[in-house]
Amino acid sequence: MSLAERTRELDAADPLAPFIDRFDLPERVIYLDGNSLGALPRATMPAMERAVREEWGKGLIRSWNDAGWFDMAQRIGGKIAPLIGAAPSEVIACDSTSVNLFKLISAALDMRPGRKVVLSEPGNFPTDLYMVAGLERQGLAVRRLASREELAGTLDEDVALLMLTHVHYKTGALHDMRALTKAAHQAGALVLWDLSHSTGAVPVDLGGVNADFAVGCGYKYLCGGPGAPAFAYVAERHHADLAQPLTGWFGHAAPFDFFDDYEAAPGVEQLLCGTSPVLGLTALEVGVDLIAEIGVERLHAKSRALSGFFLKSLAESGIALDLVSPSDSLARGSQLSFRHEQAYPICQALIARGVIGDFRAPDILRLGFAPAYLRFADISEAARHLAEVLTGEEWRRDEFNRRAAVT
Amino acid sequence: MSLAERTRELDAADPLAPFIDRFDLPERVIYLDGNSLGALPRATMPAMERAVREEWGKGLIRSWNDAGWFDMAQRIGGKIAPLIGAAPSEVIACDSTSVNLFKLISAALDMRPGRKVVLSEPGNFPTDLYMVAGLERQGLAVRRLASREELAGTLDEDVALLMLTHVHYKTGALHDMRALTKAAHQAGALVLWDLSHSTGAVPVDLGGVNADFAVGCGYKYLCGGPGAPAFAYVAERHHADLAQPLTGWFGHAAPFDFFDDYEAAPGVEQLLCGTSPVLGLTALEVGVDLIAEIGVERLHAKSRALSGFFLKSLAESGIALDLVSPSDSLARGSQLSFRHEQAYPICQALIARGVIGDFRAPDILRLGFAPAYLRFADISEAARHLAEVLTGEEWRRDEFNRRAAVT
Repeated sequence: MSLAERTRELDAADPLAPFIDRFDLPERVIYLDGNSLGALPRATMPAMERAVREEWGKGLIRSWNDAGWFDMAQRIGGKIAPLIGAAPSEVIACDSTSVNLFKLISAALDMRPGRKVVLSEPGNFPTDLYMVAGLERQGLAVRRLASREELAGTLDEDVALLMLTHVHYKTGALHDMRALTKAAHQAGALVLWDLSHSTGAVPVDLGGVNADFAVGCGYKYLCGGPGAPAFAYVAERHHADLAQPLTGWFGHAAPFDFFDDYEAAPGVEQLLCGTSPVLGLTALEVGVDLIAEIGVERLHAKSRALSGFFLKSLAESGIALDLVSPSDSLARGSQLSFRHEQAYPICQALIARGVIGDFRAPDILRLGFAPAYLRFADISEAARHLAEVLTGEEWRRDEFNRRAAVT
Repeated sequence: MSLAERTRELDAADPLAPFIDRFDLPERVIYLDGNSLGALPRATMPAMERAVREEWGKGLIRSWNDAGWFDMAQRIGGKIAPLIGAAPSEVIACDSTSVNLFKLISAALDMRPGRKVVLSEPGNFPTDLYMVAGLERQGLAVRRLASREELAGTLDEDVALLMLTHVHYKTGALHDMRALTKAAHQAGALVLWDLSHSTGAVPVDLGGVNADFAVGCGYKYLCGGPGAPAFAYVAERHHADLAQPLTGWFGHAAPFDFFDDYEAAPGVEQLLCGTSPVLGLTALEVGVDLIAEIGVERLHAKSRALSGFFLKSLAESGIALDLVSPSDSLARGSQLSFRHEQAYPICQALIARGVIGDFRAPDILRLGFAPAYLRFADISEAARHLAEVLTGEEWRRDEFNRRAAVT
């Protein structure tokens, strides 16, 4: 059977094929960067129009009650919860991943008096490491980094928190959440999982692995729009002891009593700080609803099939590339990363051909396989383009070697 | 001349009258709550549609460069700057007012080693006081409250920061920014002004009064939409020493180099933390552009005329109410607050008549006079409704005495 025939068969048999039309993707583009910014659901624009014209424009201040703006953060958190193995009351949508990291790292330090070390790995997503630096500057934390292999052995009595990203942003490699959570608990430490590259693509069972804290991103696989609000998770058993320093009025037990003194709202609601970003939450809710409707298990199965098919298609074209992602699809997230000295111009050449992946310094070509809106036909086409760019050394062209200010 | 005639004359002579059509206000509503949530500019929906459909939907990840998403926070900050007497490089749009308070209170404490006291007044907007509580819990700050009269006398060598809201959210009373800033500096303290109820309604000259820090809200007089991103100001002279603990990747000097170690971007850019909220910033920019086009001086003049006309209209109807706002229009922001035991049902009765103000516990009826989109005819009508509610004791009706969960 030819590659074209196999591709057609795979698409014909794809149970998620009907969902592709629920997204509004540009013509002549194969989008392999949904791990950076998820695509636009078709339902988003009508929802935004209703929020802007009706709720804000006509309802004005009344919409805080009448349109349910006050409950959005909790409601959307509750919808994210089943995607990550949490109870609805354990998740809330608010602020950015970075700000939520600060809250939860602080909360963990507060629960482990006498311990100051936040343990992570070098090369973790920068903002995770930077947020610890902020607490270190305040004199409240000590950052310790250890490689994957050395993490478990570095868990000593100084470690308050083990903080890791479940799916590595650069390599796509998965941590063993269950084993590491257990090891941390045995050392008396708490665990915070960054689920930015997991949620909506890879099954996560926070409850099952007994995790303490988690954060995650709204604009990647959840398709919440550029800079969408993020989410935060705190296991129910910690709610009574939860305290974090970003004590704003939306996290107060009675914000509209306008008391001078802070009293935290119960549970994850105290993670709210300023007024909820209604327009951003509106777009996020549409994405979460759609991803939840498709279902994580089916998304995961298709993600594995897509990336496997890409590797196969590439191999059949005679191309050998240095795969830095795990070759076992169960050991990686929804992406494939390749190391190549010329990763930057290769990425630019692909973009010029309408295949949008991204480059991660210094030498990684990162291709994301967002399972909700990609066809197998996109995958074989993308592999063909990559093979052509490499065999024709198209990346040598000057135009692909000019660096943008930001990439 | 009758009240009706005078009203017509005032509207006919209003230089800002043409701008009212630039807002999309509901029929049969007189909106006196623009100080809580500003009205919807007509240009917002087209801008949101472009951002969602074109920039996100079609441009996808490329829009970070191609649609200028990376510069939005700085660009919008630069547009807010002239409204508050700042240089464009001193202002940035990001996060919520609450989160920005945390950054700048922390920065101030960091610049005054050996001093821990953050001085404010009781009854300041709750989130301002609560954010100090968070730092107090971290052991980094000590909150001290003193009444307006006692503030200057309480500035001693322990005070790191004087933190006040320029226009009081409840009474509308203005602080003397120049005198208090000077007094704080003489005591070796820094000053942080919350401009949430000032920006876009009352002239502010941060540079002229030599202020150190400021924050402000995007969704009140700036008409940026519900929960819009806020802004933060740091005087140029402090940029070299600026350090704050929410050290996220968007505030890094080189975020796309993905280094493990944090290095702050220069100036106010280091106040960025997580990924910029593009959809919220899109709506905010439209509001800021419109308010800047109208101009603060003209807005202030009309604001004073509107509130003065309301008081006069009310007096002519024979109603005497307990005004808690300063009677001198130069001493108050763009609002009038009245104390009344029955403020809650009075507010509800007004809303039922289409006059939307708000209630602030325990006994304040607060009416905002957003000058960009109110007619003098709205003002005389609102005064007539209030007089009728009071003389007819309409507020006694059961339906107006049931409290909503949140108000």
